[in-house]
Amino acid sequence: MDLILYHAEPIANSAKSLIPLHEKGLTFESRYVNLGKFEQHEPWFLALNPDGQVPVLVHDGAVVRHTTVINEYLEDAFPDTPPLRPADPLGKARMRDWNKFVDEQVMNHVSIHGWNRRVALLARQYEDAEFDRLVARIPLLEQREKWKTARAGFDPKELANAERKVRIAVDKAEAQLSESPWLAGEMFTLADINFFSHCAMMLTRLFPEIGKPELYPRLYAWADRIRARPGAAAALAMPDHTDPAITAAVEKPRGAAAPLPGPPPQRGEGASG
Amino acid sequence: MDLILYHAEPIANSAKSLIPLHEKGLTFESRYVNLGKFEQHEPWFLALNPDGQVPVLVHDGAVVRHTTVINEYLEDAFPDTPPLRPADPLGKARMRDWNKFVDEQVMNHVSIHGWNRRVALLARQYEDAEFDRLVARIPLLEQREKWKTARAGFDPKELANAERKVRIAVDKAEAQLSESPWLAGEMFTLADINFFSHCAMMLTRLFPEIGKPELYPRLYAWADRIRARPGAAAALAMPDHTDPAITAAVEKPRGAAAPLPGPPPQRGEGASG
Repeated sequence: MDLILYHAEPIANSAKSLIPLHEKGLTFESRYVNLGKFEQHEPWFLALNPDGQVPVLVHDGAVVRHTTVINEYLEDAFPDTPPLRPADPLGKARMRDWNKFVDEQVMNHVSIHGWNRRVALLARQYEDAEFDRLVARIPLLEQREKWKTARAGFDPKELANAERKVRIAVDKAEAQLSESPWLAGEMFTLADINFFSHCAMMLTRLFPEIGKPELYPRLYAWADRIRARPGAAAALAMPDHTDPAITAAVEKPRGAAAPLPGPPPQRGEGASG
Repeated sequence: MDLILYHAEPIANSAKSLIPLHEKGLTFESRYVNLGKFEQHEPWFLALNPDGQVPVLVHDGAVVRHTTVINEYLEDAFPDTPPLRPADPLGKARMRDWNKFVDEQVMNHVSIHGWNRRVALLARQYEDAEFDRLVARIPLLEQREKWKTARAGFDPKELANAERKVRIAVDKAEAQLSESPWLAGEMFTLADINFFSHCAMMLTRLFPEIGKPELYPRLYAWADRIRARPGAAAALAMPDHTDPAITAAVEKPRGAAAPLPGPPPQRGEGASG
């Protein structure tokens, strides 16, 4: 098959490229990379992406990396499929302005809260020597440090600052959605997919103080409209291979016997590399 | 006039959008924003860009922000001008992969060294009360912190880490330029303009241990090819309104009586907001 996506569970980075593939009706081969087994740091994967991060797209043998680049590539390479990018220059600029904001000002701040909950448990499963061996294979210094921090515990100040940044982003999205049905205007675009995948879809779970439909009614209605789209729904229904023990531990409510209110439990929570 | 660029000296962010405008032969109105007088934090400028950062493009009344977004917008809005973006999808992806790398992994690391030299002097010109008043107007918390840090002095560990990241980037560019004449392949693109404006053009001055033509012969030859292009040359020749006292202080060789070897003194060094 000439179109291959290497990806993990349909959340964060992986959801961000799985949704466009399904929305555009593209036939592709799904190759699952098990982050729980650190497959993204295996030599075969590093040959595809030296940074050791999912997802990676391979089209007719050519490798495309980074979700924002992959998603614009799908628009350019398959112009006869349903577009997820405005046709007019100003619409494209609005979409890219949002993508830049999510990539640089949102994604990492959500991610450290996901890592703090889920990846921390994964990192603590290992004895010191085995953990050190696994971390030594990670190509990027920043990622090695992030894994060590996940095991040791993130600084509460850093977590609080990340939550502050997420609140700014959610306020900004709610304000935009009072002016237009989608983030970049009248059309559902890669900007909506980006903010949904990297922030909105895990908001209730990761940020209980922010993620409340009564605080952000437009954002929650917008997220429901995305989940109801056949393409997005098909992407989000892709298999979850996460270790059930990790999932059970993460999904256990913090300091409460009753289950958390809100949408059904979500998955993955942001490990990508 | 229907095309306006608000910008500062032709270096870093401002060079990055001035070069494409000149390369494409577009007639535009240049509106100079004096960063030395903190004009980018004045209410009239914040109305254009609430983040308080240059440059900003205004086209027929529509505002476009962020250099990478502005530069793709110029490609989309003026398709009959000389292209700075490959026509084929894979070429576009390669260009965007480099742009993403420069925007997220290079630019800020070069910038703090520029701030450490030039903006520190600017920040120390003011009495405490006046400095506090100027900083209080800056909309982004991160930028307020950066100005305070510039005045107090950057952490040597942070400067060393930034230099490490710059070395990785320069190694990566040198390796790419052994495979193709330009960063994204056979064509001069926005990727070259990005890496030149945010890193290569100030490499010799800011990073004397890295910025040596004998270490990076392909990169220096590539930078000379860029400077020799009429469009880039016209952009880089735009006026420098920097306070001469600041320029003289910055350009004084560190601990040496003789002038620094290398290209002629460069300007601005990276303040954008």
